Amino acid sequence: MGCTMSSDPSVDKRSLFSANGARASVSPNSVLALTTGDPRVFEPFWRKMGDACKVVIGGGDLMSYFSDVGNVCWFLEPELGDAIRRLHRVVGNAVTEDRHIVVGTGSTQLFQAALYALTTPAAAVEPVSVVSSAPYYSSYPEVVDCLRSSLYKWEGDACTFNKDGPYIEVVNSPNNPDGTLRETVVKRGQGKVIYDFAYYWPQYTAITSAADHDIMLFTFSKCTGHAGSRIGWALVKDKDIAKKMTQYITITSIGVSKESQFRAAKIMKVICDGCQNVGSTAAKSGNFFEYARVIMSKRWQKLREALQHSEYLSLFKYPRERCLFTGELNERLPAFAWLECKEGIKDCEEFLRGFDVVGRGGKAFGADPKFVRVSLLCGDEDFNGIIERLLEIKGIRNGN
Amino acid sequence: MGCTMSSDPSVDKRSLFSANGARASVSPNSVLALTTGDPRVFEPFWRKMGDACKVVIGGGDLMSYFSDVGNVCWFLEPELGDAIRRLHRVVGNAVTEDRHIVVGTGSTQLFQAALYALTTPAAAVEPVSVVSSAPYYSSYPEVVDCLRSSLYKWEGDACTFNKDGPYIEVVNSPNNPDGTLRETVVKRGQGKVIYDFAYYWPQYTAITSAADHDIMLFTFSKCTGHAGSRIGWALVKDKDIAKKMTQYITITSIGVSKESQFRAAKIMKVICDGCQNVGSTAAKSGNFFEYARVIMSKRWQKLREALQHSEYLSLFKYPRERCLFTGELNERLPAFAWLECKEGIKDCEEFLRGFDVVGRGGKAFGADPKFVRVSLLCGDEDFNGIIERLLEIKGIRNGN
Repeated sequence: MGCTMSSDPSVDKRSLFSANGARASVSPNSVLALTTGDPRVFEPFWRKMGDACKVVIGGGDLMSYFSDVGNVCWFLEPELGDAIRRLHRVVGNAVTEDRHIVVGTGSTQLFQAALYALTTPAAAVEPVSVVSSAPYYSSYPEVVDCLRSSLYKWEGDACTFNKDGPYIEVVNSPNNPDGTLRETVVKRGQGKVIYDFAYYWPQYTAITSAADHDIMLFTFSKCTGHAGSRIGWALVKDKDIAKKMTQYITITSIGVSKESQFRAAKIMKVICDGCQNVGSTAAKSGNFFEYARVIMSKRWQKLREALQHSEYLSLFKYPRERCLFTGELNERLPAFAWLECKEGIKDCEEFLRGFDVVGRGGKAFGADPKFVRVSLLCGDEDFNGIIERLLEIKGIRNGN
Repeated sequence: MGCTMSSDPSVDKRSLFSANGARASVSPNSVLALTTGDPRVFEPFWRKMGDACKVVIGGGDLMSYFSDVGNVCWFLEPELGDAIRRLHRVVGNAVTEDRHIVVGTGSTQLFQAALYALTTPAAAVEPVSVVSSAPYYSSYPEVVDCLRSSLYKWEGDACTFNKDGPYIEVVNSPNNPDGTLRETVVKRGQGKVIYDFAYYWPQYTAITSAADHDIMLFTFSKCTGHAGSRIGWALVKDKDIAKKMTQYITITSIGVSKESQFRAAKIMKVICDGCQNVGSTAAKSGNFFEYARVIMSKRWQKLREALQHSEYLSLFKYPRERCLFTGELNERLPAFAWLECKEGIKDCEEFLRGFDVVGRGGKAFGADPKFVRVSLLCGDEDFNGIIERLLEIKGIRNGN
């Protein structure tokens, strides 16, 4: 599906998180800045949990660089490793048996660690090409080309990629920005694949199988909404790759915050207890993914209603799939709305900006400017603001 | 002082933190692995603090990517910014007025952020040279050359550097590994300087003035011993440089753990209260730096005694200086012992390994293999182990 769109490797290089791309309080005339995916949407769930998710850290706790010196990833807190394995078993979204877990400062750092691991030591003079089918996550080109590495180089859309030699394909499924499910596109012998499963959780999509690939990335931010913790993890089949990823994180940040790991482990435990209805906090917590799915479902319903019969904007339709986690036929409920302007409007970002809604335009994702990505993970106030503005846009034609 | 040693840019590339470079329990025949600077030495202080340093984080706290959208460093928790400014005011080791604070995942990430900020956008085809006078922190070459960037390149010892064009000099003072105080060496018009003040705290050295440079890096690990938190900070004079450093951290890890920032702010507050004898916890905590200085002083005394009249090993002698923080004439008490083998022993690392003491050899620091760096920040058991082995080495000649 991504392959039908034009690629533009000269992506927009502006900062992902400019100050004005941040939270905004909503008033009738305020600018709704929804360029980032700050996941405030699930905050009420965690607020109502009260003490069940509370962590207490004493002054002398978690002081060492080291967590588990016998493990390939020596800075991974064993409790977090256990919690990650349990979470994947409970959700059924990834195979963890015989995998090494590497923890990172968000999956962003793990993506870089994987690039390093797959291109070190350098086998050729030319940097290895890194591609992903457009529309691709706007951060990939920024991260890959940030330091102008001689090890690897961003080559844009996987669909139009035709260079010989080694390459790395990033597969983001469900895909940011457009919510589509993805598989590899290039499929050549010398290719390596990094699977970015940031959104492969039951609140966003049906869990259709336990993913089983060589390198799979996950992030706490999109799973639970705890973006501030900066916790990501990789499930890695090959020990040498896991070692090199660990080495990268050692060199660039000497490990990952122990406080964040400790807290993430606790929160994952509470989620699993709630899903399995075990433990002392289970009754109180309930099933987080069920809660999150209901919210996302309501948001998508409101969004589709607001755009129904719109003369200006349209949305993809996604198929329903059987979810192994919920046991139901589930709608896809992406974290972002990938809005397409209808004929006559060439730049959808600019068009929405006219209504004080700031999304991120298609060009940043290697796609046509007629698209714009708007985050649906914002807080309620911001989300209601989007809906109001979209209704306002629909009203223009009707003379309201 | 650093300039008198031979440089070797082909530094040892083995991992900083191999599994066997980690904590070891000490028994008469066990290997004492002291290659890393894991700062366990101050742990007893924080353990005895009990509740005074305790942090409690609820399930719904610290969830957002954002901390302070109006600030250049939008992911810096304001409480941490305030705590950092207060700490420097209390200690008197750096000027914070009219500086931007950028927080990082350890000062390691900030070092990379500074390299990025000083070389972007690239002005020339050739990468900018990065140098530091030998013996230099063994991590610098690893970090600089890790991704084979076209922006910058490690060029080794600043003392022998003679290339034209732009360069960056890293000044680490007090210096890791040898504890010397440093200033710039190259002093040419096109140079930029990054000051790494990891060890510029009263437990290691006299505070002789408030450092006042364009880019200064500090790390929580060496200040308080909380290495697991991965918190570093930069004091940056120029707003555009601070913006670019922030951009680097945005691209590579979308900010820094909020949990670690929250806890670091609390611990810094307790330290300042203790130093200033204010607040409810002051009486209990006392002056951390005084405590830490007493421990370091005892360790250096034991170390010098163990090496007195040694036929095989010697240590630098450091001058005493007037400390503005303690008001006293203070000895230098470096975090590492930089041991030099006497004539007849060419490889000090190998020599010590014969006694089951594993340090990091001089070559990794761009220095002669007759040197070895041994960490003095280990726990008591490991430290007593070093002293025993050093006495054992001294005893060989005496036939004991």
